[in-house]
Amino acid sequence: MRVGVWFVGARGSVATTALVGALAMRSGLAPRTGCVADTPDFADLGLPTVEDLVFGGHDVVTTPLAKRAELLAAERVVPAHLPALLAAELTETEGRLRSGAGTGSEDQAALASRLTADIEEFRDATGVDRVVVVNVSSVEPPVDENPAHASLAALEEALADGRYPLPLSSLYAYAAFRAGAPFVDFTPGLGARMSALDELARAQGLPYAGSDGKTGETLVKAALAPMFVSRNLQVRSWVGMNILGGGDGATLADPEARLSKTRSKGRSLVETLGYEVEAPVHIDYVPDMGEWKTAWDHISFEGFLGTQMTMQFVWQGCDSTLASPLVLDLARFTASAHAAGESGPLTNLAFYFKDPVGTRDHRLAAQYDALLAWARELSESSAR
Amino acid sequence: MRVGVWFVGARGSVATTALVGALAMRSGLAPRTGCVADTPDFADLGLPTVEDLVFGGHDVVTTPLAKRAELLAAERVVPAHLPALLAAELTETEGRLRSGAGTGSEDQAALASRLTADIEEFRDATGVDRVVVVNVSSVEPPVDENPAHASLAALEEALADGRYPLPLSSLYAYAAFRAGAPFVDFTPGLGARMSALDELARAQGLPYAGSDGKTGETLVKAALAPMFVSRNLQVRSWVGMNILGGGDGATLADPEARLSKTRSKGRSLVETLGYEVEAPVHIDYVPDMGEWKTAWDHISFEGFLGTQMTMQFVWQGCDSTLASPLVLDLARFTASAHAAGESGPLTNLAFYFKDPVGTRDHRLAAQYDALLAWARELSESSAR
Amino acid sequence: MRVGVWFVGARGSVATTALVGALAMRSGLAPRTGCVADTPDFADLGLPTVEDLVFGGHDVVTTPLAKRAELLAAERVVPAHLPALLAAELTETEGRLRSGAGTGSEDQAALASRLTADIEEFRDATGVDRVVVVNVSSVEPPVDENPAHASLAALEEALADGRYPLPLSSLYAYAAFRAGAPFVDFTPGLGARMSALDELARAQGLPYAGSDGKTGETLVKAALAPMFVSRNLQVRSWVGMNILGGGDGATLADPEARLSKTRSKGRSLVETLGYEVEAPVHIDYVPDMGEWKTAWDHISFEGFLGTQMTMQFVWQGCDSTLASPLVLDLARFTASAHAAGESGPLTNLAFYFKDPVGTRDHRLAAQYDALLAWARELSESSAR
Amino acid sequence: MRVGVWFVGARGSVATTALVGALAMRSGLAPRTGCVADTPDFADLGLPTVEDLVFGGHDVVTTPLAKRAELLAAERVVPAHLPALLAAELTETEGRLRSGAGTGSEDQAALASRLTADIEEFRDATGVDRVVVVNVSSVEPPVDENPAHASLAALEEALADGRYPLPLSSLYAYAAFRAGAPFVDFTPGLGARMSALDELARAQGLPYAGSDGKTGETLVKAALAPMFVSRNLQVRSWVGMNILGGGDGATLADPEARLSKTRSKGRSLVETLGYEVEAPVHIDYVPDMGEWKTAWDHISFEGFLGTQMTMQFVWQGCDSTLASPLVLDLARFTASAHAAGESGPLTNLAFYFKDPVGTRDHRLAAQYDALLAWARELSESSAR
Repeated sequence: MRVGVWFVGARGSVATTALVGALAMRSGLAPRTGCVADTPDFADLGLPTVEDLVFGGHDVVTTPLAKRAELLAAERVVPAHLPALLAAELTETEGRLRSGAGTGSEDQAALASRLTADIEEFRDATGVDRVVVVNVSSVEPPVDENPAHASLAALEEALADGRYPLPLSSLYAYAAFRAGAPFVDFTPGLGARMSALDELARAQGLPYAGSDGKTGETLVKAALAPMFVSRNLQVRSWVGMNILGGGDGATLADPEARLSKTRSKGRSLVETLGYEVEAPVHIDYVPDMGEWKTAWDHISFEGFLGTQMTMQFVWQGCDSTLASPLVLDLARFTASAHAAGESGPLTNLAFYFKDPVGTRDHRLAAQYDALLAWARELSESSAR
Repeated sequence: MRVGVWFVGARGSVATTALVGALAMRSGLAPRTGCVADTPDFADLGLPTVEDLVFGGHDVVTTPLAKRAELLAAERVVPAHLPALLAAELTETEGRLRSGAGTGSEDQAALASRLTADIEEFRDATGVDRVVVVNVSSVEPPVDENPAHASLAALEEALADGRYPLPLSSLYAYAAFRAGAPFVDFTPGLGARMSALDELARAQGLPYAGSDGKTGETLVKAALAPMFVSRNLQVRSWVGMNILGGGDGATLADPEARLSKTRSKGRSLVETLGYEVEAPVHIDYVPDMGEWKTAWDHISFEGFLGTQMTMQFVWQGCDSTLASPLVLDLARFTASAHAAGESGPLTNLAFYFKDPVGTRDHRLAAQYDALLAWARELSESSAR
Repeated sequence: MRVGVWFVGARGSVATTALVGALAMRSGLAPRTGCVADTPDFADLGLPTVEDLVFGGHDVVTTPLAKRAELLAAERVVPAHLPALLAAELTETEGRLRSGAGTGSEDQAALASRLTADIEEFRDATGVDRVVVVNVSSVEPPVDENPAHASLAALEEALADGRYPLPLSSLYAYAAFRAGAPFVDFTPGLGARMSALDELARAQGLPYAGSDGKTGETLVKAALAPMFVSRNLQVRSWVGMNILGGGDGATLADPEARLSKTRSKGRSLVETLGYEVEAPVHIDYVPDMGEWKTAWDHISFEGFLGTQMTMQFVWQGCDSTLASPLVLDLARFTASAHAAGESGPLTNLAFYFKDPVGTRDHRLAAQYDALLAWARELSESSAR
Repeated sequence: MRVGVWFVGARGSVATTALVGALAMRSGLAPRTGCVADTPDFADLGLPTVEDLVFGGHDVVTTPLAKRAELLAAERVVPAHLPALLAAELTETEGRLRSGAGTGSEDQAALASRLTADIEEFRDATGVDRVVVVNVSSVEPPVDENPAHASLAALEEALADGRYPLPLSSLYAYAAFRAGAPFVDFTPGLGARMSALDELARAQGLPYAGSDGKTGETLVKAALAPMFVSRNLQVRSWVGMNILGGGDGATLADPEARLSKTRSKGRSLVETLGYEVEAPVHIDYVPDMGEWKTAWDHISFEGFLGTQMTMQFVWQGCDSTLASPLVLDLARFTASAHAAGESGPLTNLAFYFKDPVGTRDHRLAAQYDALLAWARELSESSAR
């Protein structure tokens, strides 16, 4: 099965790193580190391989991929020697990128049609069996409730009226579904998570997944919070402080966008612990951090006889490095699910998300077990 | 079911804290924080309650329990007001303590008989249904191989010859088994882990568990290492530094004893990761830390495209606070297993141990799942 | 020389801890740890001793000092056994406390007169040689510019008109100066720092000092920032995160008040480094921290050939413990300065303050050298 | 004044980084970050500039400098683009390197003569005004006392007898002094610190400096320990843990060599505090750290009324980056001192060393003040 991966935000750090990495891995220039779908547990389950992927995408910026790859090399996100070695393949992918949806005056219905056409053209031109659209664009601010989100009919009517009912992440999901493509939302936006789009996805027989990739601090939280629960240790407060630079940091300097992110980060802890807890999360934009991110978490907890203790951790990671292999995994799993005829939200992909659609179980180990069991089911169903 | 808990090291910090805690909980003076057996998951499984426990034990020191409780209050291990409120019950338990096995000239066979008699007398005097012996004494140095450990016959012969074939932890296990009592080894010593004692335990229809309670740094390791594995992130080094005071710290100032401990701490990581990794563990005795312990761990790991990242954590805990509720849990689970007719190593108690007998699975979440499943089986078997 | 210490905020954590400590030290119940004026460097310079101090003060709350001392003992700020031992002296001081200035409808001129009268009455009743007023009340929000602050005449006119030209910290400074007492501002408010009050202080021959005691994170900054400067290492960003509970934390949960504090914290770094740097400071109110405070600072810096490196520190301290001996020091130094005839801002006390009046040199070691040199001068001048 | 800098360990990481940096700075390819002698304080004091330096040296390894520079670029010690740009200058310096002193069978007197001749030839060939020999070779194990170190006569006699009285660092110092060159010991070895060599240096009118460059953890200690002293806070324990890779790490994996280092690190703290304190220092060789080093320090201290608090710091630095500009500084200051006619130990260079010769004042700020005052004196004396 050949799979088209259509990135929304195709020139961003995550998409570019994923692309460079996929090209490097298939040329034997890099190991499969970070790709969960390439571990022994998933080896014989018939997932599409990295070699099966073909890349394209939308973006509003126009920096060439080769240039972006060099910038990422300068930031130590991709190895310094790779951009030159992969120049030809980068240029080839360059030719499959299309102009994304800006905040211009274009009519939203017309815009959606153009985006859909781009995705269809990519599928036809490359001859892939299916396309998975993966949103790795910037964080968007929280969105107010809108009656047009309540049903597909209401949404279609609003679009027909020339209104702008959809935030960008949802517009891309709409365009993907119209094009018959599953949609994966790796950012904290609204994406496909509204009745209107769920209805459309099911009508088209399409699965979707999201949202907000779990890459750093929240990943550690998902591993640690269950430890406190299983040992009956009472968490009294869990304070998180994140400092980051890069494009993501600049976007998050906008308090509105930050709100989306901190909400998504805060929710999971209370749901895992089962009780309310003081758990503020801060995000600070510090330009000199570049593509790198440091998180400090301070956890105060109570043990036997009420004795108070603390744990702190510091996570120093590169978000694009952490996110990129997950994005490749998600395209591969979602393509498999589509091939197996699944539609609607893919709750078994919760392992990858801060705010997983359709489930409130944030325990990392349990999420992994669910992912593996589901991948085995998909494999068996496709074998039948 | 009334259960006698016989502590080896009954005047030590862990045993005293466990005792104070059990007394406080049954008087409604403290919540059940830290006791896993008291969480909703285990609520209806018929485990003995804290109220069902009766305490006694051996020790070589003679400081009264009431005095030990006050010292622990001064160190913030138990709340300041509790020792006075529990004075009467502490004195009652005081009367059930017996002199432990020192390194004196006593014949080891005779010593074992005396210890066995103490345990039997405790069972008879209190009228409990069964006694669980729990070793919470000091760390002992690693032990050389000894042919007398290879079979029960060889061991009995060595004892009959007036030799000293057993380290103290194993001598207590031998005495427990002779008395018909299950044995739990919460320290890193050899304990029941030799063919001779396994043979004896099975012959007597007795279960045993161990070893080395997983309370702090290793607990966090057991929660975090699987995160790296499940995300296919390659750990390059994991350095651990522990500073601690207290009796445990002083014992560990002896390099021989420390070796037992660091071996037990180091083993689990490689077994979880599945590959060798540079993972030194240091333990430093710093008297001013008192009963408190700080661990700093530095983890270097590699992600997508070989990019190197790091995580660090600092754990600031009180070992006795962390260990004590586990000791109560272990007595309760082991008593249940005995009642259900289990004998030999209780591998499903791996959740509690750094170096679990009979299993190499150190993933905390998997261990919890195993514990819960087993507790349900015990419950069902006892219901039949 | 007997010195009256008049606390504004006399029932707060800092004042109560200072009082308990002074009483304990003079009874031989506590060492002089934390008191700079009691180190060998200052031994023979004729400063008033802790034994020379007599305490009184204003507060708007009415919790008895003995009760406050017990609460502080429960939070591990003062040793558990001290409140009972010092009960008699605490009650004696209790009798010298007066009702402070609330935000009521009282006319500000009348209020000032009442406060002045309280201070004068305290001096007369105790027969001390002089009184130093020390403001250890809560943080107040930043204050808008006010023409009444520009000169003493303008201020007196505004007061005479029945207006409210002064924030509370300045009102206390005004009352102190009217009473012939020097004023020390240990909080980040405006205090005596306006032309009108400087004029009054000089007219009365009174010194004043402030502001915002340097106790934790900023103390460390003052020690570390000069290290980077003297080694010609370029600081690229310095992010500070503070989590604290207690009364101070609750006050700082108010964003307006927090602004005063973070401004005061941020300023010194740029002044030490000599260039602008990204240096956000966050303060989070986390109730379960109680009187304790944890600060995490992340410093990114550049060395030879532009190589980027980082340093982080975690400070876990008790603010009242850190502040209290400084408050005693300040009363003693300020009394000496008054005795020596100094008036106006005491710039040589910069060692104690985040935002020192009259100087921009924040290097801790330089501030210490200045303090010592000045204390020697005072000693010599008084010897003449 | 043109100054020859003769490195012992000329192909090591520190020497190569210093060389690349000096070449880059003089070509305008890098800023002066890290060079203290280039800060405004020292601007007009007539020190030799980086442009005045000419490089040569001894080493036992033979890897070409250009290759070493590339390896350092791969480790992020020098910027990736510099080695190629500086290829010609690196090759020129390559021609001035000579074979160092191995542990072979060569007679030590003969060896010393050869080393001296190499240094003299370098001075003659380059026409520099003077040569400063700087030891940046590997750590050597502690050395036993030797009667031959007691006087120059005893030393000369031992050498004449064909004995091996000197560790390598001292042999280089001897060779330098014989060649009329001042000697700077940047490693923790014995170097010039013996009566015999002090006698020789003074006889030749030569200054010397050392030892053990203060670059990371100890630098921070020198900034922080005085903070505790000046605030009269009692340090109860100070535990240091260092993890490092690279050549230095491998050398330190040898417990003997590590002993030199940890001794040198431990001494300064007690001397600053003025009392004994539990202060263990650990060094762990962790190969994957490469040229980078992480130190974690845990400081437990006591404040007012005996309340215990803690501070921790984590330093993540690159040793060669931190050391290299100091090495250039030291050559420049030492050349100035030589020109000004100073001989014997240069105690005013204590700012640069963990174990400064001739002084026990380890307070960083005081050391900086001493350095600056001395540089001004040198400048004035040379102006006369």
